[in-house]
Amino acid sequence: MNKKLIHQRQRQLRRDLREKNLDALLLTKVENVRYLTNFSGHDSWALLTANTCLLITDSRYGEQARGECIGCRILQRKEAIAKALAMQVERLGRIRKIAVEQTVSAATLDRIRKALRPLKVSAQPVDGLVEKLRDIKQPEEIGLIQKAGRTAWECLRASLRFLRTGMTEQQLTARLEYEMRMRGARPGFDTIIAFGPNGSRNHHQPSGRKLRAKDTILIDFGVCLEGYTCDLTRSFGWGGVSVEYRRAWEAVYAAQQAAVAKIRAGVKASEADAAAREVIKQSGFPAYGHGTGHGLGLEVHEIPYLTCQDKKTLLQAGQIVTVEPGIYLPGKFGIRIEDDVLVTASGARVLTRDGRHGFSRDSLQIL
Amino acid sequence: MNKKLIHQRQRQLRRDLREKNLDALLLTKVENVRYLTNFSGHDSWALLTANTCLLITDSRYGEQARGECIGCRILQRKEAIAKALAMQVERLGRIRKIAVEQTVSAATLDRIRKALRPLKVSAQPVDGLVEKLRDIKQPEEIGLIQKAGRTAWECLRASLRFLRTGMTEQQLTARLEYEMRMRGARPGFDTIIAFGPNGSRNHHQPSGRKLRAKDTILIDFGVCLEGYTCDLTRSFGWGGVSVEYRRAWEAVYAAQQAAVAKIRAGVKASEADAAAREVIKQSGFPAYGHGTGHGLGLEVHEIPYLTCQDKKTLLQAGQIVTVEPGIYLPGKFGIRIEDDVLVTASGARVLTRDGRHGFSRDSLQIL
Repeated sequence: MNKKLIHQRQRQLRRDLREKNLDALLLTKVENVRYLTNFSGHDSWALLTANTCLLITDSRYGEQARGECIGCRILQRKEAIAKALAMQVERLGRIRKIAVEQTVSAATLDRIRKALRPLKVSAQPVDGLVEKLRDIKQPEEIGLIQKAGRTAWECLRASLRFLRTGMTEQQLTARLEYEMRMRGARPGFDTIIAFGPNGSRNHHQPSGRKLRAKDTILIDFGVCLEGYTCDLTRSFGWGGVSVEYRRAWEAVYAAQQAAVAKIRAGVKASEADAAAREVIKQSGFPAYGHGTGHGLGLEVHEIPYLTCQDKKTLLQAGQIVTVEPGIYLPGKFGIRIEDDVLVTASGARVLTRDGRHGFSRDSLQIL
Repeated sequence: MNKKLIHQRQRQLRRDLREKNLDALLLTKVENVRYLTNFSGHDSWALLTANTCLLITDSRYGEQARGECIGCRILQRKEAIAKALAMQVERLGRIRKIAVEQTVSAATLDRIRKALRPLKVSAQPVDGLVEKLRDIKQPEEIGLIQKAGRTAWECLRASLRFLRTGMTEQQLTARLEYEMRMRGARPGFDTIIAFGPNGSRNHHQPSGRKLRAKDTILIDFGVCLEGYTCDLTRSFGWGGVSVEYRRAWEAVYAAQQAAVAKIRAGVKASEADAAAREVIKQSGFPAYGHGTGHGLGLEVHEIPYLTCQDKKTLLQAGQIVTVEPGIYLPGKFGIRIEDDVLVTASGARVLTRDGRHGFSRDSLQIL
């Protein structure tokens, strides 16, 4: 990330702190620490105050932090992390109240409170301040997810060249993730590759199941580039599919198109969900149990969520969401089609598909 | 896991609940849910009471849960997870107090408390009850880690055959992880492959850095088999190493041997740490900043820890720990040698090395 961007994020967050009358914010979540400091390691916290930004890390990450951090001082601690935090808070002075990300564990919050007690400094969990900033993607972030999407397609095409009847789900996963690594990327989450009836298990773990002639295939995978992940699913046949599969595939495809057509800044997230569900309902196939989509960026699942439970959230320009309806017939097959789209004032811009590399209706079984 | 083992774990935990006067225990941590129910999915909770064990999951995992769960009832929720929990607690009745794993996030604990409030049921975080059970490995678990260790060596040997001058860290990582996947395993954690000076960055992320003639190499990787991970590090030269590197390698190797020699049931964990540190100190090289080892099993880092901070913990038969001293010279190289050992009454049994596949002193540069 470029320096200007990181400084801009820190300034924005400081404005939020002032507005909420907070002396300091402690970031403990890996993705948020990265967002605010550019540090990509783990087990490290960032403390932001009106005047300073401090990364608290340890010897394992010292060199890396010095190479990566932007706009912050680096503390290579020797004490337990909560103790190190308290020592810094004492040094900084003037801090009475620290807001701590509410994703922190109950045990860690307790340790932080105990360490701060002698200083009469309180620690209060707060709701996703950084998540709210991350919700709207900056052009550089959009570019990275788009690049991840292009890489994902390269990897998928390259690995499908190796697909043979008799190959296992695990072997195809091996190839797909190999292609990612060879391009300097890595899996953004646990790759799902499911043959035949395994496709109806939404979070199937690739197994020793072999590909059979006339099998169906579901591939749900993400490519992570510089921390940003895309999230794609394709479902297709291996040499001819049943009439039922084709009907279901058409319904899922139409449902996805319907949701994408709804997406625009100012529209309710639940409307996109409802649009996809309506198409599936009309098709006569059973409804899918998961949401229609989720935000993605530094995390694979982040706000906003396209679900029917949340009737309030309005889509905003700059959000990136997946659109992924599905049809699942246990014992038979599962179909999901998933793309990532950028929300704009005039509609949805699909980031993971273009003329060259979509799976069209006609190429269902030939890729 | 076999059924008997899971039932045995549930019985043991129920005894712990009775002893602590707890009505119910809520498990929210993936590894603990798996340990107690055999369910390997995510985003699901297990509620254990005196009479029942309940897995609360959602439609994405329904099929998988029905296939995997042992000794528990499965609830496929439609509501938010805390709400679903509260409905079950009401149905079960007689529960006044629920112990919740303290690794739960502050936000989730808050949601649980709000959902339980109308029922006048309280939720209190508790310290690692399941972690304490997991600390002592059962024979089946030891077998899995040993098998993971053997697979790790197969993968390492297979991928090193592809090593060439000019190959990048990322390319070697691609190959190593490919070999894991091809054997039905997967990386247990982010693989670290570091060439030359990158080796001094303890948690280096594989980069585009190319292997040069006479480079040094550090590989820290784990293979995960059925949820259990081994954790190995090897450091070596690519065609001849400097006198300084060889001296440092000898010191690290001797430090590891010294720690392994100390390990035995009843000995303080800190003594193993001290033994390794003493050897490094005598060698004149700088001390390493990380601990000498950690427990491993369903998680890559779990209790016990071999560190000098903790002077109390005694090693117990059935624990599995890594032993991984190192020497890091920023700008020059890093060396770490890591094996996993089983603590027994008579000493340490190394699980990740045998006569055939150690890196001996003499084979430093030829593998």
